[in-house]
Amino acid sequence: MNYSIIRYILCRVLEFQAIFLALPCLAAIYYREEEGFAYAAVLLACLLLGVAGKIKKPKSTVFYAKEGFVAVSLSWMALSVTGALPLFLSGEFPSYTDALFETISGLTTTGASILSDVEALSKCNLFWRSFTHWIGGMGVLVLILAILPLAGGYNMHLMRAESPGPTVGKLVPRVRHTARILYGIYIVMTVVQILLLLLSGMPPFHAMTLSFGTAGTGGFGVLNSSIGSYSIASQAIITLFMILFGVNFSVYYLISARKPKQAFCHEEMRYYLGIIFAAILLIAVNIRGSFSSVAEAFHHAAFQVASIITTTGYSTADFNAWPEFSKFILVALMFVGACAGSTGGGIKVSRVVIMLKLVKNELSHLIHPKRVRQIHFEHHVVSKDVLRSVSVFFITYALVYGCSVLLISLDNLDFTTNFTAVAATLNNIGPGLNQVGPMSNFSVFSQPAKYVLMFDMLAGRLELFPLLLLFTPATWKRS
Amino acid sequence: MNYSIIRYILCRVLEFQAIFLALPCLAAIYYREEEGFAYAAVLLACLLLGVAGKIKKPKSTVFYAKEGFVAVSLSWMALSVTGALPLFLSGEFPSYTDALFETISGLTTTGASILSDVEALSKCNLFWRSFTHWIGGMGVLVLILAILPLAGGYNMHLMRAESPGPTVGKLVPRVRHTARILYGIYIVMTVVQILLLLLSGMPPFHAMTLSFGTAGTGGFGVLNSSIGSYSIASQAIITLFMILFGVNFSVYYLISARKPKQAFCHEEMRYYLGIIFAAILLIAVNIRGSFSSVAEAFHHAAFQVASIITTTGYSTADFNAWPEFSKFILVALMFVGACAGSTGGGIKVSRVVIMLKLVKNELSHLIHPKRVRQIHFEHHVVSKDVLRSVSVFFITYALVYGCSVLLISLDNLDFTTNFTAVAATLNNIGPGLNQVGPMSNFSVFSQPAKYVLMFDMLAGRLELFPLLLLFTPATWKRS
Repeated sequence: MNYSIIRYILCRVLEFQAIFLALPCLAAIYYREEEGFAYAAVLLACLLLGVAGKIKKPKSTVFYAKEGFVAVSLSWMALSVTGALPLFLSGEFPSYTDALFETISGLTTTGASILSDVEALSKCNLFWRSFTHWIGGMGVLVLILAILPLAGGYNMHLMRAESPGPTVGKLVPRVRHTARILYGIYIVMTVVQILLLLLSGMPPFHAMTLSFGTAGTGGFGVLNSSIGSYSIASQAIITLFMILFGVNFSVYYLISARKPKQAFCHEEMRYYLGIIFAAILLIAVNIRGSFSSVAEAFHHAAFQVASIITTTGYSTADFNAWPEFSKFILVALMFVGACAGSTGGGIKVSRVVIMLKLVKNELSHLIHPKRVRQIHFEHHVVSKDVLRSVSVFFITYALVYGCSVLLISLDNLDFTTNFTAVAATLNNIGPGLNQVGPMSNFSVFSQPAKYVLMFDMLAGRLELFPLLLLFTPATWKRS
Repeated sequence: MNYSIIRYILCRVLEFQAIFLALPCLAAIYYREEEGFAYAAVLLACLLLGVAGKIKKPKSTVFYAKEGFVAVSLSWMALSVTGALPLFLSGEFPSYTDALFETISGLTTTGASILSDVEALSKCNLFWRSFTHWIGGMGVLVLILAILPLAGGYNMHLMRAESPGPTVGKLVPRVRHTARILYGIYIVMTVVQILLLLLSGMPPFHAMTLSFGTAGTGGFGVLNSSIGSYSIASQAIITLFMILFGVNFSVYYLISARKPKQAFCHEEMRYYLGIIFAAILLIAVNIRGSFSSVAEAFHHAAFQVASIITTTGYSTADFNAWPEFSKFILVALMFVGACAGSTGGGIKVSRVVIMLKLVKNELSHLIHPKRVRQIHFEHHVVSKDVLRSVSVFFITYALVYGCSVLLISLDNLDFTTNFTAVAATLNNIGPGLNQVGPMSNFSVFSQPAKYVLMFDMLAGRLELFPLLLLFTPATWKRS
């Protein structure tokens, strides 16, 4: 392990955190809120620590995959621990644990809250909560890669450790340019959504914070009713943009590079849209009786499906009160998740499709044991390494899942609550069912259970292995 | 597909079914019950069909893996459909669907019942229910292989399709001798258990039926209180034998072959016993408060753990009323299941251990990408084929699981009931939680949901692929 380079990267991350914290400071100045002083204080602390810590240049530039994983895990922890401070110092959160839970929930784009009354928060806290979604959506190290001229070797390792999906597709040969293109698309789409929401009559503060939440597929709202009390037009715009932010960003790159045919043939996107379409149809038919018109049933089905499969977590209706069939479709979508290379979480559509193809292949292997068939995805043969990593990811996922439910069940809440609380955090969604349903929050859990769920949120966002490696002794051996 | 050989095997299976049905006939004569006529009628029908159908010898003896899978699946279906007839004809079951559910539950050693009052059944029906466990535990084709001189080629394919576990270990070079040894051990252990239960003061009918249920890891009892009202000594004997029947039978072969050292080093058995020990300890501490002494808490923890991990499904206490932590440990054990090569169900300890080793290997691969490490199990390197089949099995398992919960949730029962009903049937256990808890039964489900659960029971017992192949068009092509 090359400790000095990890220290260097962490200091850079703290400098960026200082820049991020400037935004809620501005919000506090605009709204004349004294909670801004807490942000200013933490900003200064991050800046000092970041600048001081990187005076001493790293001794060695040796950088392998494990350094990438560790750097990313620790960076996210540093962002969480420092990002929670102003929330705690503002006195609007019951404890530092709760502030930390809220910050990790924000950065990992989960959107699970421990608050029952978000409307009581100051504007700058509301702004910061939503802005953490936007930072976490595309990732902070991807942002650093896009801006800073880091020496070539370790770019790819950092990018791979932070980006979701079974493979990391570089859009262009250079990692730095890829990072820039990704953030370019991200910013443009966010701005377009803000403008459209303003046009639909939404107040600017709401348009901005909700767009951050949509772009990062986060889910923190600024009203207690989540999205339920906005106009139908605003809700429809958010539905559309949730679906758009769940698409693999390489599709947008292909469109911008004037390759619409290739973009349209993107296999993962087609499966993703197919699943969304089927789920909306099944749920709309199932919940038809609870709404006054078919159109309304479709509207709410579409919003909730888009919100859950993209792992955003906004809601316009209390789906906890829906029939079990619709509820279970939503639970299943929690696991599927959005596309790889999007801002959404979950197992990812590409992994699910590859796994389905593995099953199909096994059946045909049993019928014709001697015929060797390869698995194709996105018009290429899937390598054995990717097949292995997809399978092992799923096994690891199930293992982390089971251990988490076991640990939080010590709180003695009911099985549905425990099972969906882990589903909602490990997949970075937000609401679950029963006591963590869309009209409830995570304050029912004890402190130890909250730490388990925080681990799950980070493990989900970073796709398990970076976080698990922190607990593997071999990681920490000096090279 | 070689249809003629499948027909030939099915006829042989029907002949064996006629022999099996002779036993409840004898029970009916002994207890002077007129339900015996139903058994005699079905016995005759099976015998006639079996003898008539195999007059025409199979045209070709071509027999590959797929013929093995199809023959096993269809044989189990034939046993179920004919085995349900006497139960239905006796008039003691509300419908043929319910009789079929009960028979499949018996043969697959699940033990899930749709009856609320088993004590109202006639003795011959009770005997038949329990005896189906004993037939299904070791498998009917294994029995046919042990007895009939079938031509060499297809023995292994049949054995592999019916026996649980990631690999099928032949104990001795010849399949037929292996089948004989397995049934030999099975019969001896069953007889020993019957004798011990008689010694503990249990009436002969109870001792016999409960031993059938223990040996097959089934779970049908003859009292409404399952095992709760027998003496502590009887309960302890059943606990011990449940654990024994969940051990890989190759351990007993090694002991009988005077290789105690090898038997003791059996890796799967050691993990299996370790899990049981840990689970009993955790649950006993957790439920301590509900019992009058520590010894009683340990006694009930041990019984329930042994019953669930071996997928038997007997109960001495209503674990649905236990704390969530204990309940979830039991739910987790439902998935782990017993050892491969035992009569128990579930994913199997060996698969779980191999999957844990895969995760460990992946972590060390991420730290040292160039170092190639092989996975060892039972003192051998695990081949890539086995690793792939274990991973794909788990993926297929999760897929069948999800689809089943989705389909039965149309009944609109609660999530915990649906989730654990599938866990209890796909893993061949019996009781789940909430409305299918140990003091309840499966009559709450609608007819379509019952067929889904019947599919799960068969899919679980035959380890998914034989049954899934029936739905794959390529299986049915003539070769």
